[in-house]
Amino acid sequence: MWLIGARGSVATTVIAGCAAVAAGLHPPTGMVTETAPFDDVPLPPLSALVFGGHDTTSYPLPKRAEELAAGGVLPYGLPRAVRAELAAADEAVRPGGPLPGDDRDDRELVTAFTADLRAFLRTHALDRAVVVNVASTEPAAGDERAPADDRLPASSLYAHAALRAGCSYVNFTPSTGMHHPLLQQMAVCSGLPYAGRDGKTGQTLLRSVLAPMFARRALSVRAWSGTNLLGGGDGATLTDPAAAAAKNAGKARVLADNLGAAPPGEVHIDNVPALGDWKTAWDHVAFEGFLGNRMILQTVWQGCDSALAAPLVLDLARLTAAAHAAGISGPLTPLGFYFKDPDGGPAALADQYAELLAFTHDLRTRR
Amino acid sequence: MWLIGARGSVATTVIAGCAAVAAGLHPPTGMVTETAPFDDVPLPPLSALVFGGHDTTSYPLPKRAEELAAGGVLPYGLPRAVRAELAAADEAVRPGGPLPGDDRDDRELVTAFTADLRAFLRTHALDRAVVVNVASTEPAAGDERAPADDRLPASSLYAHAALRAGCSYVNFTPSTGMHHPLLQQMAVCSGLPYAGRDGKTGQTLLRSVLAPMFARRALSVRAWSGTNLLGGGDGATLTDPAAAAAKNAGKARVLADNLGAAPPGEVHIDNVPALGDWKTAWDHVAFEGFLGNRMILQTVWQGCDSALAAPLVLDLARLTAAAHAAGISGPLTPLGFYFKDPDGGPAALADQYAELLAFTHDLRTRR
Amino acid sequence: MWLIGARGSVATTVIAGCAAVAAGLHPPTGMVTETAPFDDVPLPPLSALVFGGHDTTSYPLPKRAEELAAGGVLPYGLPRAVRAELAAADEAVRPGGPLPGDDRDDRELVTAFTADLRAFLRTHALDRAVVVNVASTEPAAGDERAPADDRLPASSLYAHAALRAGCSYVNFTPSTGMHHPLLQQMAVCSGLPYAGRDGKTGQTLLRSVLAPMFARRALSVRAWSGTNLLGGGDGATLTDPAAAAAKNAGKARVLADNLGAAPPGEVHIDNVPALGDWKTAWDHVAFEGFLGNRMILQTVWQGCDSALAAPLVLDLARLTAAAHAAGISGPLTPLGFYFKDPDGGPAALADQYAELLAFTHDLRTRR
Amino acid sequence: MWLIGARGSVATTVIAGCAAVAAGLHPPTGMVTETAPFDDVPLPPLSALVFGGHDTTSYPLPKRAEELAAGGVLPYGLPRAVRAELAAADEAVRPGGPLPGDDRDDRELVTAFTADLRAFLRTHALDRAVVVNVASTEPAAGDERAPADDRLPASSLYAHAALRAGCSYVNFTPSTGMHHPLLQQMAVCSGLPYAGRDGKTGQTLLRSVLAPMFARRALSVRAWSGTNLLGGGDGATLTDPAAAAAKNAGKARVLADNLGAAPPGEVHIDNVPALGDWKTAWDHVAFEGFLGNRMILQTVWQGCDSALAAPLVLDLARLTAAAHAAGISGPLTPLGFYFKDPDGGPAALADQYAELLAFTHDLRTRR
Repeated sequence: MWLIGARGSVATTVIAGCAAVAAGLHPPTGMVTETAPFDDVPLPPLSALVFGGHDTTSYPLPKRAEELAAGGVLPYGLPRAVRAELAAADEAVRPGGPLPGDDRDDRELVTAFTADLRAFLRTHALDRAVVVNVASTEPAAGDERAPADDRLPASSLYAHAALRAGCSYVNFTPSTGMHHPLLQQMAVCSGLPYAGRDGKTGQTLLRSVLAPMFARRALSVRAWSGTNLLGGGDGATLTDPAAAAAKNAGKARVLADNLGAAPPGEVHIDNVPALGDWKTAWDHVAFEGFLGNRMILQTVWQGCDSALAAPLVLDLARLTAAAHAAGISGPLTPLGFYFKDPDGGPAALADQYAELLAFTHDLRTRR
Repeated sequence: MWLIGARGSVATTVIAGCAAVAAGLHPPTGMVTETAPFDDVPLPPLSALVFGGHDTTSYPLPKRAEELAAGGVLPYGLPRAVRAELAAADEAVRPGGPLPGDDRDDRELVTAFTADLRAFLRTHALDRAVVVNVASTEPAAGDERAPADDRLPASSLYAHAALRAGCSYVNFTPSTGMHHPLLQQMAVCSGLPYAGRDGKTGQTLLRSVLAPMFARRALSVRAWSGTNLLGGGDGATLTDPAAAAAKNAGKARVLADNLGAAPPGEVHIDNVPALGDWKTAWDHVAFEGFLGNRMILQTVWQGCDSALAAPLVLDLARLTAAAHAAGISGPLTPLGFYFKDPDGGPAALADQYAELLAFTHDLRTRR
Repeated sequence: MWLIGARGSVATTVIAGCAAVAAGLHPPTGMVTETAPFDDVPLPPLSALVFGGHDTTSYPLPKRAEELAAGGVLPYGLPRAVRAELAAADEAVRPGGPLPGDDRDDRELVTAFTADLRAFLRTHALDRAVVVNVASTEPAAGDERAPADDRLPASSLYAHAALRAGCSYVNFTPSTGMHHPLLQQMAVCSGLPYAGRDGKTGQTLLRSVLAPMFARRALSVRAWSGTNLLGGGDGATLTDPAAAAAKNAGKARVLADNLGAAPPGEVHIDNVPALGDWKTAWDHVAFEGFLGNRMILQTVWQGCDSALAAPLVLDLARLTAAAHAAGISGPLTPLGFYFKDPDGGPAALADQYAELLAFTHDLRTRR
Repeated sequence: MWLIGARGSVATTVIAGCAAVAAGLHPPTGMVTETAPFDDVPLPPLSALVFGGHDTTSYPLPKRAEELAAGGVLPYGLPRAVRAELAAADEAVRPGGPLPGDDRDDRELVTAFTADLRAFLRTHALDRAVVVNVASTEPAAGDERAPADDRLPASSLYAHAALRAGCSYVNFTPSTGMHHPLLQQMAVCSGLPYAGRDGKTGQTLLRSVLAPMFARRALSVRAWSGTNLLGGGDGATLTDPAAAAAKNAGKARVLADNLGAAPPGEVHIDNVPALGDWKTAWDHVAFEGFLGNRMILQTVWQGCDSALAAPLVLDLARLTAAAHAAGISGPLTPLGFYFKDPDGGPAALADQYAELLAFTHDLRTRR
C-alpha cells in the first residue's frame, strides 16, 4: 500500500491501525471487509500489508502518532505498541512534489515517483501495490478538462506514476487524480483497476441514507442546509474557497442523485482550529409532508475524520488489490459505497451496499 | 375505508386530505402510492374512496378539522373547502365501544360493530371495505396471549367484527387488534388480508435508515438513547406507562433487528401539551469507530404526527384493498415498509421498500 | 407611532397585535413594559396609540395580515378581529422613497417625509409621535462616515425628517438611520431622544446571556460559530453580502463586548425561502474548561422574527415617547437591553435589564 | 482541604489540577477566584493547599489519575507530572464509612472521622481545614426532617465530624450533609461557615441564565424538558431513582425560582456507560411569544463533569477558608453562584455573581 500524503493524520491512522488490528490489540471496527459477508473473499490479509508512500513533509510517523494520541485520535499507548511498524513505514516514505521552489517539470516528477514505486515493489518483493491518495484536498480547477496552464495537478502526477508502475489506484480525496483528461486514455489502456473519489465518511454518508428515506416516503425536501466545522490540516486547507468548492460538489451530488434535483440550501465549511482533528456537521432539512405541512429534521454528526477514513482506506486498498489480482480493470463502479462522487452506480447507500456485495461475489467466483 | 377512531386527528386528516388531493387542491405529498413506481398498480383511485368508522366521541368531524387548521395541522381554509366530504363522512360514523358504563358484553359489541360495517357496505353499494385502526394506543397487556380476564381489548373487538363482515384490516397503532390469540385461527380461515402494526412515521422511520448505516459500515453502536416530546391526545395517552411500553417495543425492535442486538439506551415519551399535535424526537447515538474512537450522532425530528400518518393510512388502505381484490390473504408481510412492528420481512427501510415494489409487481401480475 | 416599513411583516404584527392586546384578545406576552416592574411608569397606554408610516409598497395591511395568518405568524382569525384597526392604519400610510425611478433629490424627499409626519400629528391631534424604523436592512456602506456619493441612505432621510418634524426616533434595524455623521449635530441640537440600533430578538439575545455565563465562570471560549437560516423578506434581503455584513457586525459585537475579544468563528446567514417568516439559528461554542478540557455547547433557536420583534417595537415606542414627554434627549443608552449594537452601556443582558429598570425609575421621578 | 470521596474523579481532578496550576503547567481556566475581580481577596494561594480526605475505596489516586488521562479527562502526561502530589494526597486519605458490614454506630463513626480530621490538622500544622463533600449522590430520604430509622446519612456523619473538629464545610453534592435537622442547632452554635449544596456545573448552569432571559423578556415558557446522558460512577449512581430525585430537585428549583413557577416538563437522567466521564444534556424549551406564537429553544451541553466541578471546588474551598479566617459563620448565602440548591439568595446567575463580588469586597474589608 503506497500512500500519497503518507505522513498525514489519515495515513498515520491507517498504518498504526492496521498494525494494531493485525496484532489483535483492537477489533476491526469500521472495516467493512472484516464483517461476515466478506468471509471468503480473497482479500490480502492485514498482516501481509506493507506500507510506503510519498509526502512533502519529513515529520516522522512515530512523532505524528504521538500527537494524534495526545489529541485523542489514537488510543493512549498505541503509538508505543506499534512503534516498530510506524518506523518501518516511515523509512519507506519518499519525498513528494512539487516541493516549494521545485524546478522539476511534470515529466521529471512522474519519472521520480514511478521509480520510487518500482523500488518499493522490488525491495519488498511485492506482487502488486495499490496507490491511495489521502493527501490534503487540492483546489478545484476552473474546469478539469482544460488546466489553466500545461501543468498537471499534483494528484494527477501521482496517478500517472501509478499507471506507469503498473499499480492500481484509489483516490480518497476530491482532488483530480485519475480524473484528468490527459490520463483517461492511458488509464483505459493500462488494464489496471482504479476507484474514487472522495471518501464518504460523515455528513455525506448520512445524506446518502437520509435523502433516499425522504424520496421513498414521497416527502418533499424544500431545503437542505449544512455547516461543517473542522480543525486540523483539513480545516485549514478547506478555508481555500476553491478547495471547499471541490469538497462541496460531492456533497451536493449525493442529494441531487437521490432526490432527482438538488434542493436549495448552502453548505458551509468553516475552519475551527479549536476542534483539532474532530469535525462537527450540522444539517437542517426543511421538508414538506401531506397537505404542505412543514417539518424539520436536524442532524449533528461529531466524528474524528481520520478514524472514520482509515478503515475505509484499508477496505479500499484490499478490495482494489483483489480486483487487480482477479484481472478486473477500469473504474471500480461497485465501490461507490465508499465515495461521495463515484464513477456511476446507484446513489442510495443501501443500493451501493448491494453492489458491493455483488462485487465480492464476483471476486470469489474469479478466484 | 372504515376508520376506528374516525373522529380523531389522524382520521380527520385522512378524510380531509383525501378529498383535497382528489380535488387537485394539494399534491399527494407523502403518499408513496402516488409516486412513479406505482403508476400501473391496480389501486382504488382516491376519488372512489368512501369513509365511515367507529368512534366513542360525537364531536363532529368538520369542527375537529377547524381545530386542526387553527393548530396548523391542516392548511388554513381547507376545512371549508372540503366541508361537504367531512360532513358526509361524519354522518357515516357509528358509536364505538365499550363506552363508559357500557353493559354490553364482547359478543354484543362485536355483533353491533359487524352490523355497522355491513350496513356501510350495503348503503354505499361497496365491493369491499378496509377497516383501519387509528384510535388511541391501548395499554399493553401483561401478556397478549393470556388476557387478564375473559374480555378482549377493544382493538380486537373491532378486528373481530372486520373478519365477520368480510373486511380486510390494517392496524396503524401498537394495540393488539388482530394479534390476539383468540383471533388467529379465525383470521387464517377468513381468507382476508391484514397488515400491521404501528405506523412508522418519525423517530422509528429515521432509525430504520440510520441503524443499517451503522451496521453496513461496521461502526459499533454503543448506546442509542431517545426522548420524545408530544402533545395532543397521543401525548396524554402515552403518559400511561403501559401504553408507552407498547409504543416503545416497536422502537426497540427496529434497532435490535438491524444491529443484531438492541444497544443500551432508554426511550422516553413525555406528554408536553404545549406542543399540540407536533412531536419532537431527539436521538443520541454514541458509536465507536476505528481503534475505539468515540463519536456521536444526534438527530432532532420535528413533525406533525397526523400529517405524517395520514398519507400512509391512505397508502395502506389502497394496497390492502388491492390485495383483497387480488385474492391475497393472511398477513401482508411486504407492507413492513410502513410499520414499526411488522409481521416478518427485512428490518432496513431500503430492503422493505424493495419488498413493497416486488409486491406491487405481484398486484399488477394478478390483475 | 410612525413606522418606516409600515406594510412589512413586523409593522403588520405591531399594529394587529397592539389592537388585539388592547382589546383583551391576547395577553401582552413578550412586552416587557407590561410586566410588574413597569406598573407605575408613565407610559402611553396601548389603547391610545395611533399608527401611520411610510412604505414603498401599496399592498394593503389587511391583506398582508391575512397572509401572515395563513403562514402561522398571526393567530387564525385575528386579521378579521382587528380589520378596522388595520384598515385605519393602512389609510395613514404614505409613500416612502426613493422609489425606483424617483427623481426627487434628498432634500425633496426629506421635505415630503416631514410634511407627512406633520400632517399625521395634526390630523390625529397628537402630542407627539415616535418614528420607528422596521424596514428591510440596508446594505452597509463601506464606511458610514463617508457616503459613496452625496446621497444619504434612505434610513437617514427618514431620521432627518423625524428630527425636522420634532419626533423622537427608534432604529430597530442595522441600517444607518440617525448614525449618519451629517445628522449627528442636528440630532444633538434637536433636544429629541432617540434609540438604536438593531433589535436583539434571537441568536444575539441568546449570546447576550451565554457569553457572560462563560466569562463569569472563567471558561475559555475557543470558537463561536453560527448559522442562521431564514426565509421571508429578511432572508432575501440578507443574501446581499453587504446587508448581511451590517447584520453580523452587531452579532460579533455582543461576543467581543462580553468576552473581552471576539472569539474565532464565522456567522452565516442563508436565505431559505421554505422557512417563510421563521428563523432557525444554530450556534456551536467550543470552550475549554479546567486543564484544557474541551467541551461544547450547541443551541438551536427556532422563532418567528416578526412575533419576536413586534412587542419590543411597542415597548421601545412607549419608552421613547415617555422619555420625550419627560424632556429626556439624546441617545437613550438605558435601552441597550433591546439592541444588538446599542449606544454604549453594559453588554450583558442582566446588566442591561438593571439599567432599564433604573431608567423607568427615572421616568417615574420626572413625571 | 479535606475531601469526602477523596479517590473519586472529582477529587482526583481537584488534586492533580491544583498541583498543575500551582506549578504553572496549565492556566487556571474555570477558576473564578483566579480572575481579575478577585485579585486582592485574601484567599489561600493554591500552592499552600494540602489535601487529605475520606473514601471507602482504597484504589490509589495515581492509578485513578492514569485512568482519567486515558479517558481524556486529564491531559495526557499530567498524571506523571504531578505524581508526587497525588501520592502525598493518597497517603493522607483515611477509610470512610459506614463500610459494607460495618458494625460501628453513628457515634463511633463520627468520632473516628473527627479524629482523622484532627490528626490531619496536627500533622500538617494547619490553621484550618475545609471539608468538601464530592462523594457520590446519596438517595434522597422520603423526608429529610424525619430519617427512616435513627441513623444519619453518611454525608451528615462527615458534616457532624467537621463541626466537631472545628472545620468549615462545603457540600458540592445534593446529599443531605449539613442540612440534617439534627445538625442544625450544632451548626449554628459552632460559629463555623458552611456552604451548599449541589454544584451547578452544566445543564442547571445554563438554565440559570436562560430562565432569567425568558422572564426578563416576558416570554412565556410553556414547557421545559430535559434529558441527561452520563456514564462514569455518577451515571451508575443516578440510575437509583431516589438519587436521581435528589439531583432533579435542584434542577427544578432553578426554573421555579426564576420563572415564578416551575413549568411543565420532565427531566430524565440516563446511565450511558459508553459516555465515560462525559455528560450530554439536551434541553427543549417550548415558549410562547407575542400573540401566542410558539417557538422553541434547544440546547445541547457536552461536558466533562469532573473538569467542570474541580475548579469550582477549589474556588469554594478557598472562599470558605477565607470566610472562616475572617470570622464569618453560618450558611454562606453569597456563594449561591456555585449551587443548584443554595441557602437563599437570588436565582439568576448574574445576580448571584453580583452577590459573590459583594462578598469578596466584604472579605477584603474584614482582612
